Amino acid sequence: MATKSIKTKQITPFQLLVAFYFLAILFSFLLLRIPAVYQEGKEVSALDSLFTAVSAISVTGLTVFNVADTFTNFGVLVLLIIVQLGAIGVMSFGTFIWLLIGKRIGLRERQLIMIDFNQPQLAGVVRLLKEIIKILFLIETVGTLILSIHFLRYFDTWPEAFKHGLFAAISATTNSGFDITGESYKPFYYDYFVQFISMILIVLGAIGFPVLVEVKHYLTKKDPAFRFSLFTKITTATYGVLFVVGAVVILISESFYSMRGLPWHERLFAAMFQSVSTRSAGLTTIDVELFNEATDIFLSFLMFIGSSPSSVGGGIRTTTFAIAMLFLINFANGRKEIQVFGREICLDDILRSFVVIILAAFMVLMATMVLVMTEPYATTTEIIFEITSAFGTCGMSLGITENLSGAGKLIIMALMFIGRVGLISFLYTLGGKAQKPKYRYPRERIIIG
Amino acid sequence: MATKSIKTKQITPFQLLVAFYFLAILFSFLLLRIPAVYQEGKEVSALDSLFTAVSAISVTGLTVFNVADTFTNFGVLVLLIIVQLGAIGVMSFGTFIWLLIGKRIGLRERQLIMIDFNQPQLAGVVRLLKEIIKILFLIETVGTLILSIHFLRYFDTWPEAFKHGLFAAISATTNSGFDITGESYKPFYYDYFVQFISMILIVLGAIGFPVLVEVKHYLTKKDPAFRFSLFTKITTATYGVLFVVGAVVILISESFYSMRGLPWHERLFAAMFQSVSTRSAGLTTIDVELFNEATDIFLSFLMFIGSSPSSVGGGIRTTTFAIAMLFLINFANGRKEIQVFGREICLDDILRSFVVIILAAFMVLMATMVLVMTEPYATTTEIIFEITSAFGTCGMSLGITENLSGAGKLIIMALMFIGRVGLISFLYTLGGKAQKPKYRYPRERIIIG
Ligand SMILES: [K+]
Ligand SMILES: [K+]
Repeated sequence: MATKSIKTKQITPFQLLVAFYFLAILFSFLLLRIPAVYQEGKEVSALDSLFTAVSAISVTGLTVFNVADTFTNFGVLVLLIIVQLGAIGVMSFGTFIWLLIGKRIGLRERQLIMIDFNQPQLAGVVRLLKEIIKILFLIETVGTLILSIHFLRYFDTWPEAFKHGLFAAISATTNSGFDITGESYKPFYYDYFVQFISMILIVLGAIGFPVLVEVKHYLTKKDPAFRFSLFTKITTATYGVLFVVGAVVILISESFYSMRGLPWHERLFAAMFQSVSTRSAGLTTIDVELFNEATDIFLSFLMFIGSSPSSVGGGIRTTTFAIAMLFLINFANGRKEIQVFGREICLDDILRSFVVIILAAFMVLMATMVLVMTEPYATTTEIIFEITSAFGTCGMSLGITENLSGAGKLIIMALMFIGRVGLISFLYTLGGKAQKPKYRYPRERIIIG
Repeated sequence: MATKSIKTKQITPFQLLVAFYFLAILFSFLLLRIPAVYQEGKEVSALDSLFTAVSAISVTGLTVFNVADTFTNFGVLVLLIIVQLGAIGVMSFGTFIWLLIGKRIGLRERQLIMIDFNQPQLAGVVRLLKEIIKILFLIETVGTLILSIHFLRYFDTWPEAFKHGLFAAISATTNSGFDITGESYKPFYYDYFVQFISMILIVLGAIGFPVLVEVKHYLTKKDPAFRFSLFTKITTATYGVLFVVGAVVILISESFYSMRGLPWHERLFAAMFQSVSTRSAGLTTIDVELFNEATDIFLSFLMFIGSSPSSVGGGIRTTTFAIAMLFLINFANGRKEIQVFGREICLDDILRSFVVIILAAFMVLMATMVLVMTEPYATTTEIIFEITSAFGTCGMSLGITENLSGAGKLIIMALMFIGRVGLISFLYTLGGKAQKPKYRYPRERIIIG
């Protein structure tokens, strides 16, 4: 009995994850209280520093002030470090937790992970993490080099070009979406090269680290028996579909509105960049406040979906959305299982995806109700946009972030936090330990819908 | 092979239900094109007649014109007949389909229905329907008598009092929410007796007909082995919880706003009546346009839930909401089954409730995107309120119904229709026949959320 009650009080991996995030936020908050971070004469309240810390650790990028006008060069460096910490910490922890869950579930899953990653169990976790960090730094380094050289067009000195290249590369790869231009990617509206490179960096950061690792294994071809995991196939396919659908809807919706009369290539790039950006990056080449309300609501929906699990992004996650959609389609056709890419989806994953979607929708609803009261100056669309942007750790805004009330900032911070940790992890942190029911009751059907 | 392809083309019970609704709407539309329905000098377009037909058959009660100012006495009678047709037709068909589904699913469910209704299978269906219609007429007759006598306070002649008593009783019992006062139940703001009787009628109509039948069986006590079905227990409990939570939230939210300074009993009755009304009735004793936006969004959520399956109401339905909530709570605590009232919920019903909620939310989202474009004068909150009111066949409005564009009217009509038919039935109508997969693939876990 004694050992059992101790075991019950043991910290779960999910609680560990949440605790780690709290620590990271505290650390970042303290860094952001160093006066040298801010330009002379800029007063930043403790709440605003905390907001910035949460926004950076969760790589959301929502800001209550203009970074370029407020931060010193030292401040920008501090911000970069926090963002990098948020991205790497999350990634490694996310992957670590993922493996732990796999281990918890049973032998079958352990074998699956071993097969998928071509490696021997827990002994390989550290190697996997190292591999992921290596890949991330590689991507960021290449991105920084390319962008820095290109930015010599805009800046006279190497240090200036490097500063902007480094910040842009890290901001894109970590999908943090912060900017030191003062107006996101709008200065690069005509620079398709920067947009193209950034889109690639954004996708690499948000597609999911297991995907990157698998692609690396595939390319190095050490194992002839290698196959891509179902996860990689589903998340990549969903990412692709969301990108195309997003770009097409923005293109059509705004061609009659804010993009009317623009040349086709400007429309195309603006639509593509916005579509990619809603997965998690939050960078913008155009002023989203000019979009019509229907596009705003659609973008909110895309941000709500977010990016891949085990990536730098948030939201309900691509796989969650994909599984729910596949189940709906199959259900309408009288089937109760999902077969995709030559595999059958586990019932547990179907149930889990439904739980995440409904819980997230409920959370957005509650947050909307509160913000409608605390932010009377904002329209409901602006509020929903801000909320889904925070939950999807996307960081786009229709411009209300700087005006948020104290209560509004707290809610948005909570949403960024939950979006980043992941709703399932958050739920497991709150919930108790699994308890098997002592006896089972007979089943009975009821009427639904 | 030949017989099989004929069988595939056979009409399903769900398609029959939808076809029946279309016929009923056509019939009502033709009735509403009779010139004597409208007062002299009132021009009502074919689209507006169709809108009224859909609104009446789906017992929603949204109107593009003021019924009192537009309809003749004959018109009011026609409207009552259509509403009654909508309510009875739906009810009998709903119950019929329910039994058919039970039959389709297998022997176990057939036995359950037999046990729950204490009757021998299909032979008992007609008797059950007769019983339901008898109960409905009994409720309406008693309601009409009580209200007519009471209305002698307001009207000088018996015929006038009877006309208003009859209309109010039928409007409340069928939860149609139409009014001939020209301003819903606002004239009865101080008349708690009318409000109380109407609330009872509304609840009896929306609680679900199987519940009424079971209560009747319980009261007449012919069978000592009788027990209430799980369905009755869940839907009644949910109805009760929603009523209390709804009233409390409205009371708190509006005590600082539109109800500020009112005596406690006025606030209490206004909050209770509005809470009951959101299940499906749509009658209002106060001007909902005076509510604050947070209350509006909360009411939208309540209307989205709607009332019991197999009742006169719409929405996702109480049981759907209850099962999803119970599963979320159990899931957070590490359990994957739901035990409630000494029974275990079937997995199929859990999946079905998730499907309904997500599909409904998706539908509301899509409709919002369209209406935001077609109704530029309306705020997003007004649009969401109108949409959920239509889907929940509730019929409350923040005042935009009369201004709706043609496209807007079509969307709202579609939502009323789907809300009434039920999303599951609608989905099955669209979907193909169940097809067993020829072979099964191995299962593979993926990362969710
Ligand atoms: K971001
Ligand atoms: K109604």
